[in-house]
Formats: sequence, C-alpha cells, structure tokens
Amino acid sequence: MSLRNRLNIIVFYSNTKAGKTFDVILLWAILLSVLTVLLESVPVLNERFGKLFEGVEWFFTTLFTLEYLLRIYISPRPHKYVFSFWGVIDFLAAIPSWLSVLFPAAQLLFVIRFLRFIRVFRVLKLARFTSEARSLASSLRSSLYKITIFFTAILILVLFLGTLMYVIEGAEEGFDSIPKSIYWAIITITTVGYGDIVPQTDLGKFIASFIMLIGYAIIAVPTGIVTAEISRQNNTRVRCTKCGRENLSDARYCSHCGETI
Amino acid sequence: MSLRNRLNIIVFYSNTKAGKTFDVILLWAILLSVLTVLLESVPVLNERFGKLFEGVEWFFTTLFTLEYLLRIYISPRPHKYVFSFWGVIDFLAAIPSWLSVLFPAAQLLFVIRFLRFIRVFRVLKLARFTSEARSLASSLRSSLYKITIFFTAILILVLFLGTLMYVIEGAEEGFDSIPKSIYWAIITITTVGYGDIVPQTDLGKFIASFIMLIGYAIIAVPTGIVTAEISRQNNTRVRCTKCGRENLSDARYCSHCGETI
Amino acid sequence: MSLRNRLNIIVFYSNTKAGKTFDVILLWAILLSVLTVLLESVPVLNERFGKLFEGVEWFFTTLFTLEYLLRIYISPRPHKYVFSFWGVIDFLAAIPSWLSVLFPAAQLLFVIRFLRFIRVFRVLKLARFTSEARSLASSLRSSLYKITIFFTAILILVLFLGTLMYVIEGAEEGFDSIPKSIYWAIITITTVGYGDIVPQTDLGKFIASFIMLIGYAIIAVPTGIVTAEISRQNNTRVRCTKCGRENLSDARYCSHCGETI
Amino acid sequence: MSLRNRLNIIVFYSNTKAGKTFDVILLWAILLSVLTVLLESVPVLNERFGKLFEGVEWFFTTLFTLEYLLRIYISPRPHKYVFSFWGVIDFLAAIPSWLSVLFPAAQLLFVIRFLRFIRVFRVLKLARFTSEARSLASSLRSSLYKITIFFTAILILVLFLGTLMYVIEGAEEGFDSIPKSIYWAIITITTVGYGDIVPQTDLGKFIASFIMLIGYAIIAVPTGIVTAEISRQNNTRVRCTKCGRENLSDARYCSHCGETI
Repeated sequence: MSLRNRLNIIVFYSNTKAGKTFDVILLWAILLSVLTVLLESVPVLNERFGKLFEGVEWFFTTLFTLEYLLRIYISPRPHKYVFSFWGVIDFLAAIPSWLSVLFPAAQLLFVIRFLRFIRVFRVLKLARFTSEARSLASSLRSSLYKITIFFTAILILVLFLGTLMYVIEGAEEGFDSIPKSIYWAIITITTVGYGDIVPQTDLGKFIASFIMLIGYAIIAVPTGIVTAEISRQNNTRVRCTKCGRENLSDARYCSHCGETI
Repeated sequence: MSLRNRLNIIVFYSNTKAGKTFDVILLWAILLSVLTVLLESVPVLNERFGKLFEGVEWFFTTLFTLEYLLRIYISPRPHKYVFSFWGVIDFLAAIPSWLSVLFPAAQLLFVIRFLRFIRVFRVLKLARFTSEARSLASSLRSSLYKITIFFTAILILVLFLGTLMYVIEGAEEGFDSIPKSIYWAIITITTVGYGDIVPQTDLGKFIASFIMLIGYAIIAVPTGIVTAEISRQNNTRVRCTKCGRENLSDARYCSHCGETI
Repeated sequence: MSLRNRLNIIVFYSNTKAGKTFDVILLWAILLSVLTVLLESVPVLNERFGKLFEGVEWFFTTLFTLEYLLRIYISPRPHKYVFSFWGVIDFLAAIPSWLSVLFPAAQLLFVIRFLRFIRVFRVLKLARFTSEARSLASSLRSSLYKITIFFTAILILVLFLGTLMYVIEGAEEGFDSIPKSIYWAIITITTVGYGDIVPQTDLGKFIASFIMLIGYAIIAVPTGIVTAEISRQNNTRVRCTKCGRENLSDARYCSHCGETI
Repeated sequence: MSLRNRLNIIVFYSNTKAGKTFDVILLWAILLSVLTVLLESVPVLNERFGKLFEGVEWFFTTLFTLEYLLRIYISPRPHKYVFSFWGVIDFLAAIPSWLSVLFPAAQLLFVIRFLRFIRVFRVLKLARFTSEARSLASSLRSSLYKITIFFTAILILVLFLGTLMYVIEGAEEGFDSIPKSIYWAIITITTVGYGDIVPQTDLGKFIASFIMLIGYAIIAVPTGIVTAEISRQNNTRVRCTKCGRENLSDARYCSHCGETI
C-alpha cells in the first residue's frame, strides 16, 4: 500500500488507531485556534499577549495549511475535493494569515477584523465530527415550509405596525424613519425589548401594548409547528414489508396494499 | 374573443404565458414600490435622492392606477369589484399620490407620513399570490375562541397588577397613572422588558418578580392551545366503514380488518 | 308572586327580557366605572375633568350600593349571600367612595390610591358573565402540581445563581445584596431583561450568558406540561356505560370491567 | 433498642411521631437560616440588625453542626455517610461560620460574600423532602441528549453572529471584542434584551433583526423536544398479552378482545 493510500485511511477514516489520533488532534486544534481568535480580539489581552497570539496563530495556520495540502495530495480526485463544501471550509481555515502577509493593507482595522471573522469559520470543521444533529435538522426541515409562511406573515405584520408607529410617534426620537420603526417592531414582537427605542406618546404606548400581546401569543405558532412535527416523528410507525409504506403502530393489515403485517 | 375577454384571462388567471408575465411584473412592482416608501422615509436618503423617489413613486402610482382602471374595465360586474376586498386594496394602492396633489395641505408632515402609511397597504396585493397560509390560519381560527378567553384573562390580570403597582410605587416616576402602570405590567408579563419603567421600591421589585414568573409560566397556555390544535389537524384519521376503527388519513385498506376504505 | 320573588328572577336569572336588560346595564356599569378609575388616575385628565370624574364615581357608587342592598333584600338567605364570594365582591364594589367620606384621612395620597385599587375589583363582577373560562382553568388546575414543583425548582435555581452573582459582581452597582441579585436573576431567567441591573465583570457576563441559555431552555418545561395536558383533554375518551370509567376512543370492551361498549 | 438505634429511626425515617417532628424542625431551620443569609446581605438591614443576624447565624450553625455530628454518630457506616452527597451538603451547611472564626482573613469582603454563598447551599438540604420532582427530571433527562445538540448548535450560531457583529459594528462601543459580541448575541437570541449593548449602524440593526427572528423561531425547538417527551411519558400504554394491542395504562381488561390484563 502506497504512502498516499495509508495517509488517506488515516485522514478520512477514524476506525484505525492513527486515524483516531489524527481526529483528536484536529479537534483540539480547531477548538484552540477558535479560542485564540476570541481572546486575541479582547483589547486588554491583545496588548499584553499580542506576540503570543501571533505565534499561536501562525502555528495553527501552518497546521491547517499542511492539512489542506495533505488532503489535496491524498484525494483520489483533488479537483472535486477543492470545490466541495469541506474543501472550501479547509481553505478558509488555512488562508487568513497568509492574506494578511500578502496584502500590507490588511493592517487596516476593518480588514483585520474581517480576517478574524473568517478564522472563526474553522469551527465549521467541527461539523465533520457530528452526525447526530441530523434528526433535529430533519424535524426543522419538514417544518420549514410552514415556518417560512409564518415568517412572511410576521414580516408583513411588522411592516404595517412599524409604519403605523412611524405615523403616530412622528415627531419623537427613535421613530424617524420607517425602517427604524420596523426595527423597533421586530424588537417588540419578538419580546427582546432592548429599550433603546420606546414609544413616547400615549397612543404609541397603546399600540405597543397591543404589539407585545400579539408577539406573546403568536410565538405559539412556530412552537406548535415544530412540536407537532417532533411528536409525529416520535410516533414510530410500522412499515409494510410489501409496499414499504407507513401504518399505525397497532395495524394488523397494511392500509395501503392490504397485506398482513 | 373580445379584447376585454382576452385581458380578463391575462389579469385574473395565471395559467397562460401572458398571465404569468403579468403576475411577475405585478409582484416586482409591489415589492419595489413598498421598498421605495421605506427608503423615502429615511431622512438622509430622502435628502439626497428625494427627486428620484418622487419619480419612482409617480411611476408606480401610474402603474397601479392603470391596473385599477383596467380591472374595473374588464370586470364582468365592475360595481361588485370596486367594493370587494381586492377593489379597496387596489384603490388604496393607486390613490395616495393623487391625494397629495389634490390637497396642498398634504405638505404637512403628519399627512405625508399618513399617506406613506397608506402606500404600505400595497403589500396586501401580495396576498393574491399566497393561498398556502390558509392551513396555518385555520389552526389559529379554531383556537381563536380559547385564545380570546386567555387574553381577556390576561387583560384582567394586568389591570389588577398594574393598579397594585400604582399603589405601591406611588411616589416613584413611571407609575404616575393606572394606564401607565398597566402598560408596564404588559411589558413585564409578555417578557418584553424595555426597562424604560422599572420598579424602584423593594416591595415593587418583589411584586415585579412575581409578575415575571407568572408571565414566564402562562406563555405555556397559548402555546399549548395552538400546539394541541396543530397536532389534532395533523392527526386527522379515517374511520373504517366496516369495523369503525381509526386509520392513517392516507390509508386505502383498514389496518384492523383489511377492508377496502 | 311577590315583588321580591319577581326581582329575584330579574337579578339572578337572565332568561327573561327584564333579566337580560338588567345584565346588560350591569355589564356597562362595570366597564364604565373601571374605565373612570383608570382615567381619573391620569394627572392631566384629573386636573381638567376632576369634577366630572367625581360625579361619575358617585353615580356608580350609588348604582352598585343599590344593587348590593337589592341583592341582600331579595336573597332567600341574606346572611349566606353577604359572606359568599359574590357578596364580598359586590361589597367591595360599593364601599370605596363611602370610606373616603367617612374618613377625612382618606385625602392622603396613598389612601386615595388604595381606594382606587379597591374600585378596580369591580371588574371581578364581570366573572358572573363568563363560564367558558372553566375548561382552560381546568387544564391549568390539573397541571398545577407539576407547575408548582417546576417553580420551586426555579426559585432554588434563582437563589443559587443570584447569590453566585452577588459574590462575583461584588463591588459593582446593582448586586449590592442577595435579594437584589435574585431579582436580577429572575429578570434574566424569565427573559424579561429590563437592563436596569446588568453584570459589569467579565466573569459575571459569562455566568449571565449561562443563565440566559438556561432560561431559554427551561421555558420548555411549563409549556410542555400544559401542552401535554391540553392535548390529553382534547383526546376524547369513551366512558363505559356500566362502570363509568374512561377507555381509548377505539375500545370495544371496557378495559375496567370487561363490559361490551 | 440502643439510643443510637432509636435516634437513627427518628433522624432517617419520618413515619414515627418523633421523626415527623424532627423533619418539621429541620425544614423550618433550613428555611429560616437561608432567609437570614438573604436579609443579612442587605446593607441597610445589616447595619441595623447586624448583631441579631450574627446571633441567629450562630444558632443555626450550632444546630446544623449538632445535626451533622449526630448523623455521623448514628450512621451504621459513618465513613460512607461523610463522603456521600448528603454528607457533603450537611458539612457545607455547618462549616461556614467556623471558617470565619478560624481565619481572621475571612473579614475580607469577598470571603464574607463567598461564605454567605456557601451558606445558601443549606437550601439543598430541602431536597431530602421532595421526591416528586423526579418525573419532571426524568422527562428532562430523556430529552438531555437532544437538548445538548441543540445548545451546541446555538453556541456555534452565536459564535458566528457575534463575530459578524464585531466586524460590522467595529468602531462602535459595546462590540469591542469578540467575546463581548457573543455575549450580546446570546442576550439577543434568547430574547432577554437588556439593552446595555445595542447595534448603532444600520447594517448592524438589520443583522440584529435577523438574529431576533431566529431566536424567536428556534425557541420552538427545546419546547418541541420537551413537550413531545412529556406527551410520550403521559401516553404509556399497556399492551394486551392476547391480541397485543394498546390499552390505557390503568386498564384491567383489553379494550379490543376483552381479555384480563
């Protein structure tokens, strides 16, 4: 077996000892590198440990770059890997520090911040290790259509209520444009309630009370949709051995083809 | 086929190519005109692009006016259309700019704001394209009676708690009238919590904690009502005509006795 | 039939024309008198319409006093009525204005506010007209035991988290006593979030994030309890004609006594 | 029966009269001692009643110390008791005041606060009296795995959204480090909404609206999980041994074939 094949098994499978070790190292590298990005962004820490963070960052950049090149090298079809979801994620995990060297303009505050943001994408490499989230995701996916309709309804509601408050609160601060009033309506209807914008007029407060009560009641809708979906998925059904369709768990004959179960 | 008939098919049905094109143009006209109203209300943008917005507004006003007149012309019974839900919406979508010309008083800030509000009603023309919201709406409608009772109970609760806080917080700012105290109680019980009015006395804080916990618990009630309703609608079963027992709604044979349904 | 008997039928039953009229007048009297209390508490309105409010208040006081005396007069057992729930409510609805005359000390701000609070109890007279709230109330009652346990758990949790924050945020403002820290923990865990007290230290913010996520997750518990209860009540059961106990809706034999249903 | 045996029955069992009295005294001692800790932490009360609180504290310390020693004495295997959950709790309930005497450094504010925190652990002694919380706890436990996945997803989401806001809001106050931005994202997504940090830029407000709507929708997920679990536990059915179909959990005869269960 060639080196390339052996590496392939270590990197892409985790049922060998070397493969498991590789996975564990990768897991810690991801977590520690993301932690470094978080800590580096704190001004006080950056001032004191700036040099250390830079070193750690280069260490992980080297590591993820080597991993990326290795994966390209051992892929049976490198072209396909590079443009796959994982290829893009691995590329984004390796590139930021190199960019900041290539472009001196990267010294600008915004660019530095943006590169840090890209670094956080490294956390997506974690997704390789989790396959259990799928049943939850599938509950959400089958509710997606209903939830989309619900959100369209919310957006239209918020558009109206926001504009109404813009008319009513008119001269007051905070409601000086329709988009800002809509922002306020979203803050209110989702029950977040920052309090940075609050109605000042009596009529505005009355409408606001009304919006709060609406928001309090309609949170029941997405909850109801998802709960009903999860309950449905929990209710195990019996599959007919002949036609493969679902039956109630206490069925004796398949309700689709009449076969005895 | 007369021109009127052909137009009728294009405007009211979407199963011809011309009809589909008409629908798509209308959809974009609605979205763009509402977007214009939103952007126009932002002082900074209005200052710089005021002339552009005015032009765009007149363009859409002309468009919706033509559409309104066209619909009247091609309706078999124009009188009925004009006073139908859609007739009123189409009228509201076309009229605002004409009003601002007819009445110079429309230069007043409040009137301008109010006309903008009416323009936002254009978004209701979108409802023509969505018929899927009905199943959600029907869940809500069958829960409506219970939810109304629930809200009456909330309002009475809030009336009591608001008045109680008015007595307790008395001299403090923010609780200087019962309606304002009720406004605070609604902010608290719905867990919005702006923080513009907060209890200052120790007893007030104690009562407030109590109100928060109530609000946190009774949100379960509308959620429970709607969830139970959605679950019930998901679980509509077919009864076997022979043995009378329940089957899944897509069953063709009874799962208890094998009878064809 | 004596006058007393005839009045009894009008007042206590609503199936005669006079009885219905009496109910409608009473309903409006309750709503208007409560509205008067609300408006009277607004300083601006009280200044301008103070005399009017006083007059209206005396009008309703007279009305409710007459109603109270009438009910005592026509009751078969007056003693029983006076000490019943309704007797107490009717007494509270009639007494406040008389108190403010009897005790000149009632001119004190706090006493005035307190009498207003008592007047709001008039709204409870409304409960005579609603009997539909019972099914909701019964759902809540059968969940009451579980919800009590849940709240005891929340209170213990909040006691710990509040004390922990008191230790951590120590020197900062807002967390200067354990009860105040617990007040903050309740504001946070119920997702109300006034923002009048917020953690200042980094560790405090970390713990606060943790508390928010807990609050966000455990709201599921009361919701789950009530939803499951309402669902259960919606699932109609068949009662056995012999032993009267519940069976699944598709039962053919009573599962308690074996009787054919 | 030796004294030790008799004491054992009083302390560990509550089915004798003396045992019940012991339990009731213990219950009140716990509640009152925790209340003392709460009140002692209020500066105003501590100033006035400081001496009283100190006395009460020593009274309960003595009581709990005696109880602890008693439990060690009467335990069949003292060693096992001392290192059990209850042993640790009883130790923590007795020790704080002794610590503050042993170490004069305990006069430091932080240490005093920390000792108070330990005293609050006394409330855990209450857990001895509640065994009903278990069914709720078991619902939560069987949902734990799904809820953990859900929270991991939330944490990754919040990491991204926080970092994104850090890039966007850059120069503004409140978003000056990634951890702080993540703190803000948690405040927003859980709908707590303190309002101590709010987005200032228009793009930031747009993203914030998006985060609020996400938070409003995904609260449905833990709720759905727990509700489905509680419903499932409520619906445990008994299967008939003869025909194998489900019956209500309190059934004595199968409702399908009449067989005794």
